[in-house]
Amino acid sequence: MPRQVDHRERRETIAHALWAVVDQQGWARATMREVAREAGVSLGQLQHYFSSRGEMLTFAMEFAADQTSQRVTQGMDSLDQPPHPRDVLRVTLVELLPLRPDARATSRMNAAYVLEAMHDPVLHEQAVVGLRGGRARVERLIRQAMDDGQIALDRDPAIETDLILALTGFAPLLELNVIEPQAALAAIDQHLDRLFCPAS
Amino acid sequence: MPRQVDHRERRETIAHALWAVVDQQGWARATMREVAREAGVSLGQLQHYFSSRGEMLTFAMEFAADQTSQRVTQGMDSLDQPPHPRDVLRVTLVELLPLRPDARATSRMNAAYVLEAMHDPVLHEQAVVGLRGGRARVERLIRQAMDDGQIALDRDPAIETDLILALTGFAPLLELNVIEPQAALAAIDQHLDRLFCPAS
Repeated sequence: MPRQVDHRERRETIAHALWAVVDQQGWARATMREVAREAGVSLGQLQHYFSSRGEMLTFAMEFAADQTSQRVTQGMDSLDQPPHPRDVLRVTLVELLPLRPDARATSRMNAAYVLEAMHDPVLHEQAVVGLRGGRARVERLIRQAMDDGQIALDRDPAIETDLILALTGFAPLLELNVIEPQAALAAIDQHLDRLFCPAS
Repeated sequence: MPRQVDHRERRETIAHALWAVVDQQGWARATMREVAREAGVSLGQLQHYFSSRGEMLTFAMEFAADQTSQRVTQGMDSLDQPPHPRDVLRVTLVELLPLRPDARATSRMNAAYVLEAMHDPVLHEQAVVGLRGGRARVERLIRQAMDDGQIALDRDPAIETDLILALTGFAPLLELNVIEPQAALAAIDQHLDRLFCPAS
């Protein structure tokens, strides 16, 4: 189905153009007109692939989430098999934070999306589903690690899950150079070391 | 100097209008025209108080930071004197997070500002100065608590500071109802209990 592949490829090209506009000029300037210019297509062509700005943003966000998942999967592949849950959490956090250029593009896109989702009911619903899904995966992993004796049984799995999620709070601090990448990694390692310490 | 007071008051009224636009419609829609409409003044009148959108945003952010500081100060006043550093950190975090309507307005404004600062060099510089100042205050408090035997001496004060800052990562999760206010407070208390535990 070359037609469908082309369609998908063109949408991905447009998503990359949207990321570039968001990265360089900010979310407010990411109009369909500006994204068309960046992608080198006419506004009419862009509207052939996305009928509205909301649809374009949603696709670009789903594509960003896919790219993040792929980076996480690649990171997992480089770990001992089966991977230790501590390493799984570390790889996931590292790929969610703007520590490398590709992660930075998706992280910045994500920050813009979350802000937009606060005011847009459709984006809000999508963002909540995505974030709650991510939260549930972290909680399952922590509960399993408790069952496996890797995390002390007196820990509260819901609270530990939320404290892991809070570490994504480093994203804006890294973006604005308030903390250095090495400091964020040291803090993540310290937090994980304390969590995966059955004797604590 | 009633003239100057009027000027300041009018600017604060406009800042409130900007917050309302950001809160209800999002950052992208916070043009000078829209803020003027919300504030019930003409665009020309608005431009008398702020010559550019950037100037308006900067003032609105500084005003939001002042309001947050005032809420923190009020929170401190209700504590035992002198306040325990654990309580100081808790009050500060609670006022930074969108847990109440007034804190929600400034938190959302702050998220929008941080995103804008990633692309705007002037806002970037201001945001970095403000955030680094806040980080330095937290680190001083933690070092003092270590000197006073309230935090174990084997803790790394820089890492502990960054882990406190990471807790502001609950803001978007609260905004999108991914976690409940009670869960965020429980996680903050758990984290602070572990930090202020000299025997750990």
